[in-house]
Amino acid sequence: MTVGHHNEATASSRVLGYGEPDLPAPAHRHNEATALSRVLEPRSVAIIGASANPDKRGYQIIKALKKAGYNYPIFPVNPRGGAILDLPVYPGIDVLPHAVDIAVIVRPAEEVPDILIQCGKKGIAGAVVLAHGFRERGDKGADAEQRLRDALDISGVRIIGPNTSGMLNCTVRADFIGLPELPPSGPVSVLAQSGNMILSVVEDSRTINGPSFDIIAGLGNQTDIGYGELIEELSKRKTTRSVAIYSEGLLDGRGFLDAADRVAQSCPIVMLRGGRSVEGRKAALSHTGSIAGADDIAIKVLAQKGVILVDRSDELLPIAALLATSPLPKPKTGIAVLTDGGGHATLAVDALSRAGAPIASLSEDTKARLRRVLGDEAKVENPVDVASAADAYPDVFPECIEILASDPQVGLVLTNGLFGAYHIRFDASLLKAENAAAERIVALHKDTGLPLVFHSCYADRKPENHDILRKGDIQVFPSIEWAATGSKALYARATWLSKQDSHVAKLIPEAKTVFVPGGLSAETAARGILEKLGVDTGKWLSASDANSVEAAISTFASPCAVKLDSAHVVHKSDVGGVRLGVTRETGREAVEDIGRAMTSHTPPLQKYGFIVTPMVDRGAELFVGATDDPVFGPVVLFGSGGVLVEAAKDVSFRAAPVSPEEALNMIEETRVAKILDGFRHFPRVDKRSLANFISSLSMAVLRMENLAELDINPIIANESGIYPVDVRLVGK
Amino acid sequence: MTVGHHNEATASSRVLGYGEPDLPAPAHRHNEATALSRVLEPRSVAIIGASANPDKRGYQIIKALKKAGYNYPIFPVNPRGGAILDLPVYPGIDVLPHAVDIAVIVRPAEEVPDILIQCGKKGIAGAVVLAHGFRERGDKGADAEQRLRDALDISGVRIIGPNTSGMLNCTVRADFIGLPELPPSGPVSVLAQSGNMILSVVEDSRTINGPSFDIIAGLGNQTDIGYGELIEELSKRKTTRSVAIYSEGLLDGRGFLDAADRVAQSCPIVMLRGGRSVEGRKAALSHTGSIAGADDIAIKVLAQKGVILVDRSDELLPIAALLATSPLPKPKTGIAVLTDGGGHATLAVDALSRAGAPIASLSEDTKARLRRVLGDEAKVENPVDVASAADAYPDVFPECIEILASDPQVGLVLTNGLFGAYHIRFDASLLKAENAAAERIVALHKDTGLPLVFHSCYADRKPENHDILRKGDIQVFPSIEWAATGSKALYARATWLSKQDSHVAKLIPEAKTVFVPGGLSAETAARGILEKLGVDTGKWLSASDANSVEAAISTFASPCAVKLDSAHVVHKSDVGGVRLGVTRETGREAVEDIGRAMTSHTPPLQKYGFIVTPMVDRGAELFVGATDDPVFGPVVLFGSGGVLVEAAKDVSFRAAPVSPEEALNMIEETRVAKILDGFRHFPRVDKRSLANFISSLSMAVLRMENLAELDINPIIANESGIYPVDVRLVGK
Repeated sequence: MTVGHHNEATASSRVLGYGEPDLPAPAHRHNEATALSRVLEPRSVAIIGASANPDKRGYQIIKALKKAGYNYPIFPVNPRGGAILDLPVYPGIDVLPHAVDIAVIVRPAEEVPDILIQCGKKGIAGAVVLAHGFRERGDKGADAEQRLRDALDISGVRIIGPNTSGMLNCTVRADFIGLPELPPSGPVSVLAQSGNMILSVVEDSRTINGPSFDIIAGLGNQTDIGYGELIEELSKRKTTRSVAIYSEGLLDGRGFLDAADRVAQSCPIVMLRGGRSVEGRKAALSHTGSIAGADDIAIKVLAQKGVILVDRSDELLPIAALLATSPLPKPKTGIAVLTDGGGHATLAVDALSRAGAPIASLSEDTKARLRRVLGDEAKVENPVDVASAADAYPDVFPECIEILASDPQVGLVLTNGLFGAYHIRFDASLLKAENAAAERIVALHKDTGLPLVFHSCYADRKPENHDILRKGDIQVFPSIEWAATGSKALYARATWLSKQDSHVAKLIPEAKTVFVPGGLSAETAARGILEKLGVDTGKWLSASDANSVEAAISTFASPCAVKLDSAHVVHKSDVGGVRLGVTRETGREAVEDIGRAMTSHTPPLQKYGFIVTPMVDRGAELFVGATDDPVFGPVVLFGSGGVLVEAAKDVSFRAAPVSPEEALNMIEETRVAKILDGFRHFPRVDKRSLANFISSLSMAVLRMENLAELDINPIIANESGIYPVDVRLVGK
Repeated sequence: MTVGHHNEATASSRVLGYGEPDLPAPAHRHNEATALSRVLEPRSVAIIGASANPDKRGYQIIKALKKAGYNYPIFPVNPRGGAILDLPVYPGIDVLPHAVDIAVIVRPAEEVPDILIQCGKKGIAGAVVLAHGFRERGDKGADAEQRLRDALDISGVRIIGPNTSGMLNCTVRADFIGLPELPPSGPVSVLAQSGNMILSVVEDSRTINGPSFDIIAGLGNQTDIGYGELIEELSKRKTTRSVAIYSEGLLDGRGFLDAADRVAQSCPIVMLRGGRSVEGRKAALSHTGSIAGADDIAIKVLAQKGVILVDRSDELLPIAALLATSPLPKPKTGIAVLTDGGGHATLAVDALSRAGAPIASLSEDTKARLRRVLGDEAKVENPVDVASAADAYPDVFPECIEILASDPQVGLVLTNGLFGAYHIRFDASLLKAENAAAERIVALHKDTGLPLVFHSCYADRKPENHDILRKGDIQVFPSIEWAATGSKALYARATWLSKQDSHVAKLIPEAKTVFVPGGLSAETAARGILEKLGVDTGKWLSASDANSVEAAISTFASPCAVKLDSAHVVHKSDVGGVRLGVTRETGREAVEDIGRAMTSHTPPLQKYGFIVTPMVDRGAELFVGATDDPVFGPVVLFGSGGVLVEAAKDVSFRAAPVSPEEALNMIEETRVAKILDGFRHFPRVDKRSLANFISSLSMAVLRMENLAELDINPIIANESGIYPVDVRLVGK
């Protein structure tokens, strides 16, 4: 069946334009196809703005579709009519014979809203909008963006873009981007906010003979369809086994986190973030009108929800390729490095260690068995060095891998060195033996399910045996660091999946919210709000004058801190608003001292109260806080506290809510965690109480409306408990 | 002239074996060739342990030499005589017709010492010793290593190795490693402690069509010739324009630092260090018997001496290639990013920012001129985005580079995106225009001397125009991150060279040294030693009893700290050995308190004294110290001080001595530097006084014999000065 044939069809019985019995119907395509699934896997396409001029995008897209072997109807639309590349041109959307799956709109920004409304009327599910001139232009494009949004509301059409380089589906051979050659169908899907990054990952896959692609989409401005919705849809496709993302900013970060948390259960998500630096943020803003958000927060909350982050553009494809094809290591195992050279082994172990990947201790039995293969002098500690044993006998690799696979401590074998190139390095006659060794390794891989990752410094020569491994779903990388980062990614994912239960921290469904007043709250008000939301801020009393301060001190029957209680002073101690170790006898004096300080304050402070708290014993000065991140929503913080909190830069982040287990992980990520187990004169702290406190705070902040920032600093932790010393709450 | 002809020669007039008038003599070869220069550029070679068996190394090396086109005499040596590959075999070293430049010894470890002694008798300059079984075997190999050392002393022969994969010289076509193909001659020399890493860098250069090699040497155990000596020798070669090092440990770290400091003046040194992690160290130790040393110290002291460090094995060759071929940017300029896509630009700026490279602000004039080329809507802030302007007109790149080159703020242009592949991406007819654009860029590069670095996601396709750039000494990388790290490396080198004067901190030549007694010194002794060496530790008095403590307090006429003075207690405050705010009236009580604490100490402390110092006002608690690093010798430290110094991990390092300027850099590298400019209630500190103190301490430690560790913690800095509060000195 030819595309031309289809275009000639006008049968009204085929109104939906897909599901024709004589077209191939991939197994996952259901009749109840959603708009989004029709967009991602279109079985008919209209080119709005088709052109007969080979220099125009409206021509090139049609040409690219035909070249790629797109086997479904293509409907060029142009008021001029005629024919383009043997396809009849329809003069308008309204006269299209089908309600097609997708429209590719190549007309300029100002025409797009009207076109979308016409598409909606015709029942077209979605559109790719290539035009730019919207939000990414700043104020100049704001109007156009708003008109586009209005058209989306009216038409109900789902769009990818605008300001996108397009999308493609290798499985149905639909290429709206126009690659030099459309790659074959493969397991990696790609979402990117950059046409160039799409070209990069396609080239990278080609360079490493890596796995190919299912769907690749340029998201552009994400005016309608965003990352969250797309990963959910991709995860439903059997043809997608990992999603690689290049993002310059998530418009709905919180929604993406929720989606990622669900999707990552079954489908790995690998993400490279652009705009992480101040300068990069500026560049991204002018590119896609998006903001990446605070880098340190993003890193933590994305990992919390199962997203594997890569730091380098050159690692996005390799890591996504590995995650798409490799089984996962068992938790609590480690990596065995199998090498033919000490230098490569050393570097592999260094790279694994830097990536934070676990390194296996081999059992005595394993070492004895390795020695039987490699000889008595061989280095059979991890890394295992076959040295010259493989030079003439490549089967030493499968033999060693088989032994390592039977060690329960070993969860992954990273083979590195010259693998597969002995016939290049030494003797061409070794080629056959190397191919056979690769076949044996593939069989072992299938039998044992053990993740295997390879590095070979000859990978760029693309020897046959490397492709044998790749066809057996084993990746071979030219870079030791890729192999190490990839191995770590497999462990990170395995660990995340194993911790699922502890991640779930649920809110009481009927939980009421509390409104946080704009600006700074007085400390008593802040503590009041926290307590209303179930966070115990310890002993404190509010007082309005010397008498009530004295009464409060009497209640606590111990020396107290007497502090200014005002919504007008951020740093109480800087303005003389704090008196420590105050007894009943010195209560009045403290009130008078603070009073004098307030009179000499600029401007003088007239109305204020006091907050009285019992003095706290010495302990570690910590920080617990929360912020409403503009991208990811409520986030909790934990770290070193005290005056130098900003200089210390010792803080960990999570999206709220966090379970006590996850809060423990937060604590352990900080440097200050080391002193909480007791250090010099610092007392041992019950980390679990601290974690419970963080967790309860994380629940509370979800119930705060209008929260800007919450700082409990310091919160003192010692052997008898944890004591919030100063609480600062700020509304938007 | 054939090699065979030479081997037949027996003329005694050619005893030296080099300098024959009918052999090509590279310009840098002098008659006064040193032993080391003869080793690195041998004009005659003896193969000790030559073999007629093609499976043996003693055959393969001869074959490799012939294949590589080595145009000088080769003398196989084997007691059996005969001929190998048409070369007559000499039955012994003593009967060799020449005193050859280099012997390649392929005999096992136990025979090597005797062979070296024979070589020495024959006047052979040096040898490559391939055998293993020495120090890298631990105790088992220690004897063999010692016998080897003895033979070196007796023979005077210089050796590379043992436990090396060999060396090669592409310029004279001498390949003792036996590569599949010997690369052409090029500007990069390589020193590596790993045969596999040698293969890696050779492959990496091939993969990126990068510059080739001059000399490549595997150092092995460095029993004789080490890194320091080799870089000095390489830097004398006109054919070497950068040295890439893979090191698993410098046996003479201090010597290497001194050599690097000299060499880096004229020749870039790029270094990848193996064994940086705990696990990697273990692997390296069993591989070459070397220890990399403490990672954080190594990083700082190597950079201090001009060494460019790379973190990844896959970046060693690209960065060395760039440094070998690119001019340096002018100091105080920044990088302009020129791109054809926002995503790549964003990632480039992110990568530059992460690497710490400076990013240029473009002048208004530059932006106006760029707009004239790119249109009014173009993004001409840095990054400059040509967007689709280049799709059909590649000359837009040289046009923009020319404009950027004339902006004095711009010191380097990093071009990224699809560069050079428009004929692949869009239309094959663009090939000619792209080649012409590349030629124009090469001409611009030559005219302006402006460093140009390219990334292209199509680099792996090796388009002609990329090779035009490379032939014009402009590197094109497939990875944005390589381009960014490389650009940063060029700036790091330019900055280092520009700071030369401030690095020189000289000792008084006749300076006397002071012996530090083993173990902990009492604090008064420690301060005494420091003061003898010109370091002012502030006001303090030694006291032996209550009377002298009272007298000391009177002298200072202010409240004092009275502290235990003993060589037996490390943490005085932990054992009740410190009393603060002591006045003349409370002096006796303080002495008695400390006395009671010492009696109840385990074991009870009987003999001790006191040190009395005036109380110091509030300020920043800092740390200044020194250690004798096992690899790099005396190193000074600066950072956050106080009890939590180890948990804070906020410390910078330099090899002693440091100038006050370099000490200022140390201070600025720490997080605590931020509060020294005044923060909340922290006073502003005179950083220059602090730097002077660090500098004077760094001079002092060079004059301490037997130093293990010196900690001044805390040293309190406030608006009135800097005050060493606690001084702890430990000898070995």
